[in-house]
Amino acid sequence: MNGLMMQQPLLVASLLTHAERHHAEREIVSRRVEGDLHRYRFADLAARSRRLANALATLGIRPGERVATIAWNGYRHVELNFAVSGSGAVLHTINPRLHIDQLAYIVEHADDRAIFFDITFLPIVEALQARLATPRLFVAMYDAEHMPAGHDTLLCYERLIDSHDDRYDWPSLDENTAASLCYTSGTTGHPKGVLYSHRSTVLHSYAGALPDAFNCSARDAILPVVPMFHVNAWGLPFIACMVGAKLVLPGPALDGKSLYELIEAEQVTMSAGVPTIWQGLLAQVAGRRNAFSSMKRTVVGGAPCPTAMAAQFQQQHGVEVLHAWGMTELSPLGTVCSFKPHQLALPEEARYAIQAKQGRAVFGIDMKIVDPDGQPLPWDGEAVGELLVRGHWVARAYFGDTASQPLRDGWFPTGDMARIDRDGFMQITDRSKDVIKSGGEWISSIDIENIACLHPGVASATCIGVRHPKWDERPLLLVTRTPGSTLGKDELLAFLDGKLARWWKPDDVIFLESFPLGATGKVLKNKLREQYGAHYAGAAAPRS
Amino acid sequence: MNGLMMQQPLLVASLLTHAERHHAEREIVSRRVEGDLHRYRFADLAARSRRLANALATLGIRPGERVATIAWNGYRHVELNFAVSGSGAVLHTINPRLHIDQLAYIVEHADDRAIFFDITFLPIVEALQARLATPRLFVAMYDAEHMPAGHDTLLCYERLIDSHDDRYDWPSLDENTAASLCYTSGTTGHPKGVLYSHRSTVLHSYAGALPDAFNCSARDAILPVVPMFHVNAWGLPFIACMVGAKLVLPGPALDGKSLYELIEAEQVTMSAGVPTIWQGLLAQVAGRRNAFSSMKRTVVGGAPCPTAMAAQFQQQHGVEVLHAWGMTELSPLGTVCSFKPHQLALPEEARYAIQAKQGRAVFGIDMKIVDPDGQPLPWDGEAVGELLVRGHWVARAYFGDTASQPLRDGWFPTGDMARIDRDGFMQITDRSKDVIKSGGEWISSIDIENIACLHPGVASATCIGVRHPKWDERPLLLVTRTPGSTLGKDELLAFLDGKLARWWKPDDVIFLESFPLGATGKVLKNKLREQYGAHYAGAAAPRS
Repeated sequence: MNGLMMQQPLLVASLLTHAERHHAEREIVSRRVEGDLHRYRFADLAARSRRLANALATLGIRPGERVATIAWNGYRHVELNFAVSGSGAVLHTINPRLHIDQLAYIVEHADDRAIFFDITFLPIVEALQARLATPRLFVAMYDAEHMPAGHDTLLCYERLIDSHDDRYDWPSLDENTAASLCYTSGTTGHPKGVLYSHRSTVLHSYAGALPDAFNCSARDAILPVVPMFHVNAWGLPFIACMVGAKLVLPGPALDGKSLYELIEAEQVTMSAGVPTIWQGLLAQVAGRRNAFSSMKRTVVGGAPCPTAMAAQFQQQHGVEVLHAWGMTELSPLGTVCSFKPHQLALPEEARYAIQAKQGRAVFGIDMKIVDPDGQPLPWDGEAVGELLVRGHWVARAYFGDTASQPLRDGWFPTGDMARIDRDGFMQITDRSKDVIKSGGEWISSIDIENIACLHPGVASATCIGVRHPKWDERPLLLVTRTPGSTLGKDELLAFLDGKLARWWKPDDVIFLESFPLGATGKVLKNKLREQYGAHYAGAAAPRS
Repeated sequence: MNGLMMQQPLLVASLLTHAERHHAEREIVSRRVEGDLHRYRFADLAARSRRLANALATLGIRPGERVATIAWNGYRHVELNFAVSGSGAVLHTINPRLHIDQLAYIVEHADDRAIFFDITFLPIVEALQARLATPRLFVAMYDAEHMPAGHDTLLCYERLIDSHDDRYDWPSLDENTAASLCYTSGTTGHPKGVLYSHRSTVLHSYAGALPDAFNCSARDAILPVVPMFHVNAWGLPFIACMVGAKLVLPGPALDGKSLYELIEAEQVTMSAGVPTIWQGLLAQVAGRRNAFSSMKRTVVGGAPCPTAMAAQFQQQHGVEVLHAWGMTELSPLGTVCSFKPHQLALPEEARYAIQAKQGRAVFGIDMKIVDPDGQPLPWDGEAVGELLVRGHWVARAYFGDTASQPLRDGWFPTGDMARIDRDGFMQITDRSKDVIKSGGEWISSIDIENIACLHPGVASATCIGVRHPKWDERPLLLVTRTPGSTLGKDELLAFLDGKLARWWKPDDVIFLESFPLGATGKVLKNKLREQYGAHYAGAAAPRS
C-alpha cells in the first residue's frame, strides 16, 4: 500500500524557483574574466536562466543532449547550470586543465552539441575546433562589444540572452532524468563520464547543507573556490539556491591576494577548496592574526588537509576547518569531519588528530572497508582496507560505457584505502594504487607524507613505493623544501624516528624543486614511480 | 535520458541503520510511565526494533496493515516507529486525548490490527475494547512483572521483545510505500487520516534538520515535548537518527517542573512544543535569569507564539525561539521563522515583529495566498488570503476516503488565512473558519488576540466573530485574567486604541475563568461561537 502524499519530482529547476521566490533580492557576485566584479540578484539569475533556456531551444538543443562548458565560476556558468539541466538537457562541465587530447576525446565521447566557454579559453577552443571531426556550436560567454575579431563562427552569449524572452515554464521532468555530466580525470586510461540525475543532485544538496556537513543557511555568503568543472563546485551553487545564501564566484582569480580581497569585500562566511588554494590564501595573510573579518569556516577537500593548515586557519584566524572527502562518482560528497560532542572536550592535540581524518558519512551515504577478499573490516581505527560506498548520489555506471561494470555487489569501490574509527570517522590512508606493499604488509604513503610535512623545512612531501629486491616495495620520500631551508636527508629521517613504525621509515629521501601535477592539481605519483622506479634496484635488504 | 546514479529507495529504516552504524553509542533517555528514567543507546534501539519486527511477523502483521499506538514519547514508541514502518506495515499514532467516540471511530476506520499502549491508557483501552466490533490485539508497553492483573487478553511488550531474535533484514521497499498514519483532530466532522510514505518521511527529515529549520547536528540533545501522536513529534525522532543527536523523551511528565529537571539533567540543547507547554516551563523558571544551562533554542508551533513568550525565552534565558508552522497534512513542517541576514541588524522591536510571523517555507514546500476567486495575492505583507501549499511531504488525499478531493489544482488548501511579506515570511492571521467577516471586510482574530495579550492583566485571549444585525459579524473578545488582575472591559478596550484599526476593535469583552480546549490543546472557537453567537443579536448598529 502506498502513501497518499503528493508525487512531485526532485528537480534542479526547483532550486532556482525556490531561490527566486524566497530570496529574490539575495546577491550573486562574480569576478569576471573582464576583471571587474559583477553583481546581481537571484531574481536576475532566474530571469536570465529562463531566457537562456529559450535560447537553447532556438539553438536546437533537445532533451538529453549534452551542452558543455569550459568556464570559470561565474554567474553565466550558474545560469547555464539551470538553463541546460532545467530544460531537460545535460550540462557537461569540462576541466580546461586537461591535455588537449583528453579534451578532444571528452567532447567527442560526450557528443556535446554546443560548447559555452569563457574567453580566457579561446586558445583551447581553437585547438579543439581544429581537432573535432564534427562541427559543434561554440558560444563565447561574453558581451557583444567584446567578441574577439576574426571568429565569425562564434556565437555570443549576451546576444543570445538579449534576443530571448524571460518567460519559460520549466518542464516537469522525471526526477531520474540526467541533469549533468562530469568526467573523471583518470591518470590512467580514458576519462570516464559520471552522469548525475535531477534526483541525485537535489538529495545531495539537502545532505550537503546539513549542520554537520557544510552547514549552510540564508545568513551565509558562500565562496566556492573549487571550480564548477570539479563536480559542480561540490554542489555549492545548488545549496546556495536551496538555502538563500549569497553566492560569491571568484572567476579566474584564484591567487591568495585576489581571494583574500574578495572574501573581505563580500563578507564571505564560508568557502570550499583544495589545500593548494588555501596555501596561497594563508600565505597572503601570513604573520597576521584574525585576518578574516567574516569568514567562519572553510571546507578542505580534494586532497588530505595537512594538520598545519588546519591549525593555521583555526588558531591564527578563528576559521573552522571542515575536512571533507568525496569523488566525482559521489557528486562529490561522502564524508565531512565535524565533531561529535564528546570530541569537543578533548585536548587540542587529540582534536587535531581527529581533524586529520576525512570524517563521517553524511546521511544518504553508506560506507565500508574491506580486505582483499571483499570481507568487511572492523571500524576500530586500526584496520586498513579498500573503501566502498553506496548511496543516493553514487554512480552505478559510466556514461557511454556499458563495458565497464564499476560496482561490486552494489557497492562502488572508491580506489581509496582507508581506516574507520569507532565513531565512524574515516581516514584515507592511500589511493589503493599508491599504497606501498612491503614484506606482505601495507604502508600508508599519506601517513608518511603528513608526518614529513610537520618538519618546518618541508614545503610538501610525496611518498611512493619503489620496487625492492627483498621487500617487494619500500617507501621512497620525495620532498620540496621551504624557502631558505637547507634540510638534509639524515636530519629528516631522524625527525621521523618515533613518529611512525620503524619499518614504515623511508629508505631514502630525494629533494626536488617541484612535483609533476595533474589537471586537478594533484601530484602525479605514477610519473614519479616511472622516474624513480629503479631507485632501490641495487639495494641490499634493509632487514635480514 | 536518465542519469546513471544508484537507485536506492528513501526508507525510514535507513535512518535507524545510519544511526546504529555511525552513532551507536549516542543515548536515548526516556521518562517512563513507571516514573523512572530509562537510558540506552542507538545500538540498543536498533537491536530491539529488529526484535520487535520479528515479533510483529509472529503476530501476523502483514505489509500495509495498520498497527496503532496510544502512547507517550518514549523509547518503546520509537522502536514501534521503526519496527512497524521498517517492516512495511503502517504505524498509526493515536491521540489519547480524543473523545472515546472519535477513538473508536479512528480504530475502526484505520482497521488497526494491533494496538500498542502505555499502561496509563488502560482505561481508554478498556473502553475501546467494549466498543470495537472486531476484536483486536492489544499490547501493553510494559514489562512482564508489572502487567495489570485481570487482563489476560493483553499481550506484554517486553515479553514479545525477549522472545524474538535481533537478526532481521529490513526489506527494501518501494519508497512510496505507506509508513505511518495520523488522523487530524477535526473539530467538525470525522477525523481524517493522513498517510505518510517512506519517501515523504525521509525528505521531511532532511528539510527539518537544515540550519534554517530545526538546525540539528550530532552535538544536539533533542527533547521533543510535542507528542509522537502529533505528527510523529514533528519528525524529531527521525531527525535525531539522521544526524546522531541524543534523544530525550519526556513520557507523560509534561509539567514545567518535570520538563525543567529533564532539560537540565540531560543537558538538552533544543526542544519543540506548543505554546501552552512553554507557559508551564517558563512559569517554573519565573523570576530567574539564564535558567537553562544547555538549551540553545526551542521550536514553538501548533499555535501562534506570543511575542511575550519569545521575549521571555530570548531576553531572560538566552534561548532562541524558532516560530514554526505546520499541519498534520504537511508531515508537519511548512515554515520556520529563522532570520535573514539583513533582519539580524534590525532594532529589537522589529525583530520581534518578524518573530511573530510563522516564517518562510523550507525547501521542498511551495506556498501561495489566494483571494476568494483563487487568484494569487501579492507577497507585500499586507494582502491576506487563504494559504495553499504543495510539496514532497504534503497530503494529496485522505486514507480510506476517496470521496473527499482535498486538492485545488494540485495545491492543498490549509484552511488558514495568511499574509506573506516581501522576504517570504508568512503570518497566519486566522483559521479561515475563524476569520471575522465584518461589513464585507476581513478582521483577523489572531491579530486582536496578540494585541490583547500584551496587556499585563490578560493571561489569554480569544476573539470570535459574532452575528451582528448590521455588519454581518463583529468581533467579541473573550479573556482570562492573570492571577490578581482586576482588569475591566473599559480599561482593556482603551488599551487597544491605536494598536489596531478602529473598526477592528471588539464591540464587547467577556471575562472567563478558562476556555474550552480540544484534544490538541487548542481553544475550541466553535464552542464559544455556539455559546456567545447571539451576544450582539439585539445590538444597535455601532456605526451609522
